[in-house]
Amino acid sequence: MASSTEMTDPRDGMTPSDVALPVGGIQLAVAASGLRYKGRDDLCLVALGTTAAVHCLFTTNRFCAAPVTVARRHLARQSARYLIINAGNANAGTGHAGEQAALAVCAAVAHRAECDVEAVAPFSTGVIGQQLDAARLVDKVPALVGGLKEDAWTAAAAAIMTTDTRVKLRSARVISGGRQFVVTGMAKGSGMIKPHMATLLAFVATDAAIDPATLRAMAEGAAARSFNRITVDGDTSTNDAFALIASGAAGNAPIAGQADAHYASLAAAIDYVCEELAKDVIRDGEGATKFVTIGVRGGTTAEDCSRVAYAVAESPLVKTALFASDANWGRILAAIGRAGAEHLAIDEVDIAIGPCPIVRGGQPVPDYDEAAVSVVMREAVIDIDIRIGHGTEATTVWTCDFSYDYVKINAEYRS
Amino acid sequence: MASSTEMTDPRDGMTPSDVALPVGGIQLAVAASGLRYKGRDDLCLVALGTTAAVHCLFTTNRFCAAPVTVARRHLARQSARYLIINAGNANAGTGHAGEQAALAVCAAVAHRAECDVEAVAPFSTGVIGQQLDAARLVDKVPALVGGLKEDAWTAAAAAIMTTDTRVKLRSARVISGGRQFVVTGMAKGSGMIKPHMATLLAFVATDAAIDPATLRAMAEGAAARSFNRITVDGDTSTNDAFALIASGAAGNAPIAGQADAHYASLAAAIDYVCEELAKDVIRDGEGATKFVTIGVRGGTTAEDCSRVAYAVAESPLVKTALFASDANWGRILAAIGRAGAEHLAIDEVDIAIGPCPIVRGGQPVPDYDEAAVSVVMREAVIDIDIRIGHGTEATTVWTCDFSYDYVKINAEYRS
Repeated sequence: MASSTEMTDPRDGMTPSDVALPVGGIQLAVAASGLRYKGRDDLCLVALGTTAAVHCLFTTNRFCAAPVTVARRHLARQSARYLIINAGNANAGTGHAGEQAALAVCAAVAHRAECDVEAVAPFSTGVIGQQLDAARLVDKVPALVGGLKEDAWTAAAAAIMTTDTRVKLRSARVISGGRQFVVTGMAKGSGMIKPHMATLLAFVATDAAIDPATLRAMAEGAAARSFNRITVDGDTSTNDAFALIASGAAGNAPIAGQADAHYASLAAAIDYVCEELAKDVIRDGEGATKFVTIGVRGGTTAEDCSRVAYAVAESPLVKTALFASDANWGRILAAIGRAGAEHLAIDEVDIAIGPCPIVRGGQPVPDYDEAAVSVVMREAVIDIDIRIGHGTEATTVWTCDFSYDYVKINAEYRS
Repeated sequence: MASSTEMTDPRDGMTPSDVALPVGGIQLAVAASGLRYKGRDDLCLVALGTTAAVHCLFTTNRFCAAPVTVARRHLARQSARYLIINAGNANAGTGHAGEQAALAVCAAVAHRAECDVEAVAPFSTGVIGQQLDAARLVDKVPALVGGLKEDAWTAAAAAIMTTDTRVKLRSARVISGGRQFVVTGMAKGSGMIKPHMATLLAFVATDAAIDPATLRAMAEGAAARSFNRITVDGDTSTNDAFALIASGAAGNAPIAGQADAHYASLAAAIDYVCEELAKDVIRDGEGATKFVTIGVRGGTTAEDCSRVAYAVAESPLVKTALFASDANWGRILAAIGRAGAEHLAIDEVDIAIGPCPIVRGGQPVPDYDEAAVSVVMREAVIDIDIRIGHGTEATTVWTCDFSYDYVKINAEYRS
């Protein structure tokens, strides 16, 4: 029988914060390199302190960018002390020269901050296929190292934006076992969004001390429930990375495993911050006018649920109908049918848009009310609920619509 | 050793025709039902004659439309005598009522033409999820049956259009072993185009006599090399069907197997007609401004080549860059990297756009000339050539770009 502690909602101890709470032990600094954007910050340094642990998930794109290759190598060899992030140039598809450029930036940080080069992990986002002018970033390293402070999350979240139109920043306070922890995270991403292992750039930090295996489990779990459940256009970036940082500044004994008294509350707070950041990416999807939640349940396998959810979420026809607020549910049905689900009982499929049933048992509902559905479709937030059988698996994917502005943003300038 | 006959290019005996050649034994008629479109034909009857054989490939979409269910059942039981095709309503997602509507139309044809109802195969294309008003079609059946003639391919090709802006009609004459054969085909399709087994609606007829097994092999082979190599938006329709008809009116002994003297020439002509019809669909892709050929070679498996080709062809980011004539090859590289190819040797990947090498051995070419690539990107016809390793497999996919008009067509009215 479950104990009463296990029955408590782990979110009970968590309070979302409207402002970005500083995370003890984590300092940030920003600068304007002029690499691509004029008159705005585009470079960010994050200092982790000596007690911090970090776990990072990277893109599954086989053409991973030079900074991903370098960061992966450095993180495998040493505990990271610094993360250096630039926006405007992804340093992807740049071959050996790109790797040298990423290393040069790390070396500059290591030299100034007096640490090993392998204690610096680089991250880049922006145009793919152009060589990175490392000198412009290196020039700013002294100012970055000299300007580190705990209360710079908002400036940092702004500095890592590319086609993003809004800062993505989430924060929560956790009370657990008489202790207080903080979780704060930032993300960037708007297009080329379809996660596999992780997506976009996201950096989430807590002041809790967490042992490496537990940190890894928390990072993988949070990504699976947040960044890995969103898609703007089905395009997985070459540069995606999600870093979960535990600074240890809170002074607790490192959280070790799920039995730890603080585990559930802290994992819930991390999940909350990641889920909200992931949703922020969709809310700011390139050209997006709608936030769409696609719930698929009744699957025999999670894979079937996922295939159906993504087929609907990525169908250009469904997305343009959403943009038009057109209750064209036939396109949803067609996408479900082509999704490649292994177990799909056509005569058990239900589809609902918001509160309105559309299809029940694979047949249009007899009392279908298009006028009611049209009202729901005009909302900015739309839920599509799909049942594909009598299995127990379910999944949720968040996506956006496909508008003129998506074409404009991606046709009229390079992102 | 191959005989000299086998060494001859089978296309030597084939002459493409600028006009649609009537096919002996095949008669067509059209009518305007007023079901959805005003002032244009939207209904087509094809009469096959008693000596004809037909092989039909259908959509792999699990939510296949009512007419697909009925046509598949009828074709399995009897040799088809009549095909009845309507545009404007797909009769998909319509449940049992939709099946009854399709049967009612077949029954009307059977009654008037004095054949079994199972000798009539129905085909529908248009909006998904609306009940078909069968009475409007039934009303026109007497005029259709009374108006059948051999020289009506152009009118028929126009009658089956939906969002298509152009008639898709191809024809060829074949001289083989002193005999003359004709192959003529029509297709419709512009959006919701991503074939699996067959795509869109396509009807190709020859006056040759061909035995059923050979006809099936020719249909599957031609589809694999034409309709199954195109994509507009990755959305597989609920109604796709491709019918290959051999009327037998030419009077030859039925072609039986690949060793038959007429096989190679006739298969080449059927392939030609299908490939050109498939390309016509892409040329008329919703909102398309570019015709793009994506060739992938060097794969260890055909599946890997196909995954890479479709990942590039369906990437919204690649498609919007093509629309913008932007040489943003980083998006091509990113799509290759996420395609899920099992064997992808990053350091053996080459990418070229037209005659311009972009990436060689996984690295940007040292003498990359963006100005030259930009010239190529401004063309209306663009070839993208991708090598993914040293394997022997290759594939080609034809696609189009993604423009404002794609969004407009699919957002502003129902298709």
